[in-house]
Amino acid sequence: MQRIFASETLGSALLLAVVVGSGIMGESLAQGNAAVALVANSLATGAALVVLIWVFGPLSGAHFNPAVSLVFWWRGEFDAQSLALRCTAQLAGAVAGVLLAHAMFDLNLIQPGIKVRTGMGQWISEGVATFGLLLVILACVRRNTNAVAVAVGLYITAAYWFTASTSFANPAVTLARSLTTTFAGIRLADVAPFVAAQVAGAWLAWRVERWFAADPSSPGMSQN
Amino acid sequence: MQRIFASETLGSALLLAVVVGSGIMGESLAQGNAAVALVANSLATGAALVVLIWVFGPLSGAHFNPAVSLVFWWRGEFDAQSLALRCTAQLAGAVAGVLLAHAMFDLNLIQPGIKVRTGMGQWISEGVATFGLLLVILACVRRNTNAVAVAVGLYITAAYWFTASTSFANPAVTLARSLTTTFAGIRLADVAPFVAAQVAGAWLAWRVERWFAADPSSPGMSQN
Amino acid sequence: MQRIFASETLGSALLLAVVVGSGIMGESLAQGNAAVALVANSLATGAALVVLIWVFGPLSGAHFNPAVSLVFWWRGEFDAQSLALRCTAQLAGAVAGVLLAHAMFDLNLIQPGIKVRTGMGQWISEGVATFGLLLVILACVRRNTNAVAVAVGLYITAAYWFTASTSFANPAVTLARSLTTTFAGIRLADVAPFVAAQVAGAWLAWRVERWFAADPSSPGMSQN
Amino acid sequence: MQRIFASETLGSALLLAVVVGSGIMGESLAQGNAAVALVANSLATGAALVVLIWVFGPLSGAHFNPAVSLVFWWRGEFDAQSLALRCTAQLAGAVAGVLLAHAMFDLNLIQPGIKVRTGMGQWISEGVATFGLLLVILACVRRNTNAVAVAVGLYITAAYWFTASTSFANPAVTLARSLTTTFAGIRLADVAPFVAAQVAGAWLAWRVERWFAADPSSPGMSQN
Repeated sequence: MQRIFASETLGSALLLAVVVGSGIMGESLAQGNAAVALVANSLATGAALVVLIWVFGPLSGAHFNPAVSLVFWWRGEFDAQSLALRCTAQLAGAVAGVLLAHAMFDLNLIQPGIKVRTGMGQWISEGVATFGLLLVILACVRRNTNAVAVAVGLYITAAYWFTASTSFANPAVTLARSLTTTFAGIRLADVAPFVAAQVAGAWLAWRVERWFAADPSSPGMSQN
Repeated sequence: MQRIFASETLGSALLLAVVVGSGIMGESLAQGNAAVALVANSLATGAALVVLIWVFGPLSGAHFNPAVSLVFWWRGEFDAQSLALRCTAQLAGAVAGVLLAHAMFDLNLIQPGIKVRTGMGQWISEGVATFGLLLVILACVRRNTNAVAVAVGLYITAAYWFTASTSFANPAVTLARSLTTTFAGIRLADVAPFVAAQVAGAWLAWRVERWFAADPSSPGMSQN
Repeated sequence: MQRIFASETLGSALLLAVVVGSGIMGESLAQGNAAVALVANSLATGAALVVLIWVFGPLSGAHFNPAVSLVFWWRGEFDAQSLALRCTAQLAGAVAGVLLAHAMFDLNLIQPGIKVRTGMGQWISEGVATFGLLLVILACVRRNTNAVAVAVGLYITAAYWFTASTSFANPAVTLARSLTTTFAGIRLADVAPFVAAQVAGAWLAWRVERWFAADPSSPGMSQN
Repeated sequence: MQRIFASETLGSALLLAVVVGSGIMGESLAQGNAAVALVANSLATGAALVVLIWVFGPLSGAHFNPAVSLVFWWRGEFDAQSLALRCTAQLAGAVAGVLLAHAMFDLNLIQPGIKVRTGMGQWISEGVATFGLLLVILACVRRNTNAVAVAVGLYITAAYWFTASTSFANPAVTLARSLTTTFAGIRLADVAPFVAAQVAGAWLAWRVERWFAADPSSPGMSQN
């Protein structure tokens, strides 16, 4: 239990250090060309996710994401106490990762997020982004387990680009990113609807994947 | 049958959301540098294709492309009714994906494609692009099945760059992209010759790959 | 034999279509930022190489490169006639690929290469680039066969950047690229020293890899 | 022993040729957009690392890094003499690689590093970068051996972006990079604190990974 907590905390911290740090670096070098900064940000995040899932997957499943843990709880894979523990670890780690990124770039450790991210398009984006993330995870876990890490990394690299919100797709990440004024930041007031959309997208992915898996003609059928 | 239809529809919708969405995002951030926008567009599309084929491959083969389904029908792998069903699903999904991309970016859901894509170079490009795509799929299916998803993703990333048309290589995608005015769009009047060139390229790949496979000295020889 | 010839020709043609085509596309969109064009060129070439080796590897070994075939001939894997056949196919295919790229972009089919690529730095670069390429191929063939395709693709993507010549590393490619005035071109007068440096680099890699492999304490030891 | 020395020297030389060479190329083409140069630099370095580890891993473990060799020495995998030999080879190779890069680009072979890289943020960055690198290596070696090469390549590509120092994470690389005035350079005076931070980060990773591995409920538990 202690290991799971430590693994989710440390993994989430490193993930946020990458998300926020590569955003700072990209923006500072890109001479105002935000597309170049986002190329850097999306490649760094996707590459790091693959590696972090390889490292922490055997220790805690490498969720780093309350929406992912929630779905696995819905599937009955652990109890409510374990879910709470994981979400706490993820949030604590995510906040620590933001502070670490700020420390590496000699910035104030805590900053207010000021980037406005609101409106129907943003909320649809977060719903779609999280739906896709969970669909990828659940489908690969069921039929292509070895591919999970690479699939998640590739998916997030793409999702930074095809959604209008650049795919937060993670409640702990969203809240932690309200603590930075830099490239990856978000206004605190915009966090709650993001999280609501993420949970809705995750729930839908859970139901859709279960419907696909229930097909008697497809292999690997089971509960959940 | 219902699962195949749902899988091809949902997969095609997500594919088009990526193609069109990442084009919108890339263009809006790239300060007029279309090469940077195309880097984003091509990496996002290639990455997403790998993941979508992993997710939907076990459910429906993950064609998402009438040209691919047509070749598998020529090879006798399913009947005409199944072909029609797949093409319908692919087209419906592709259109839905374009609407979804527009919704995420707060744009009008239906827009007229205005990008002129015509002339001999464009048509050769679509023939070459689809020839290459089918050659890759058929060769990997025969000798390197595990590599299909990654091969298609890498191929499309390259094909966005080495063809003058940025490789539509897919009749359903081509028609659906006539519904957007954004980066990935195409004029409706230019769709038909693109589709004709795609079908010609797919047919040629089918014959060439069959010729290679018929070599008595090479392994994995068979009909088709 | 016929299959090998066809495979090397078609594969080399597609390789050159990618090298030259993605150079044209990159340069035309990059607003004069040659680094962005080279990002596109190097990613497209690397991605395509992986796929082409997966497709044509089982048919002909997917050399596409007289320097590679030469080394395998030195190792005694085929006779001089077969070497000549392969080199002819590679050159014919490479030239056809340049013409195909020009056709796709509505350019004159044959163009004089005008890009000056000469001097000691360029020649050292070609020696190093080809040394590295052959070292990667020979080492992976001996100990990590499944990785050859990906290793070559990654290597070439890197080599476009770390050598001053952007790593032609292939005599057939070098000669064929003297037929284009575009981004990937080279002056005909500069071809011969490039080829000499490539052969020297290939020879050195063959000897070095053989020395490493002869170590009695390392696994997979053998002749060659 | 001779093979290990040769392998570490040659591998380190090629690694530095890539790091420094791709920096020179990127900077010279990027029209002052340092983010584009760093995209090239980080992709080339990451891609080359994967390939170099595949090539030299079976010969010497492909450390190329005194911090990595130090940790394996702490783990008792070889004696102090072997450690000294490896570090000597790594440093000699790294210096040779810098000279080789300069030769390829027709620059003065030895140049004084002038890039100022100092301050708390830089030192934290090097500690974090090396901590992450060793954590990735140790975790993959224990549980996911086949993934080590790709994991290191992806990690370094990300680490170029998420740390303020662009992740030297290697004492031999750091010292060798003090011999170039180009993009990848560092002032000689700034080398020592970088190395200290790297050793501290490596030590921490060793202890943390050992703690995780000691968990009786996790698989693959052992000493070290």
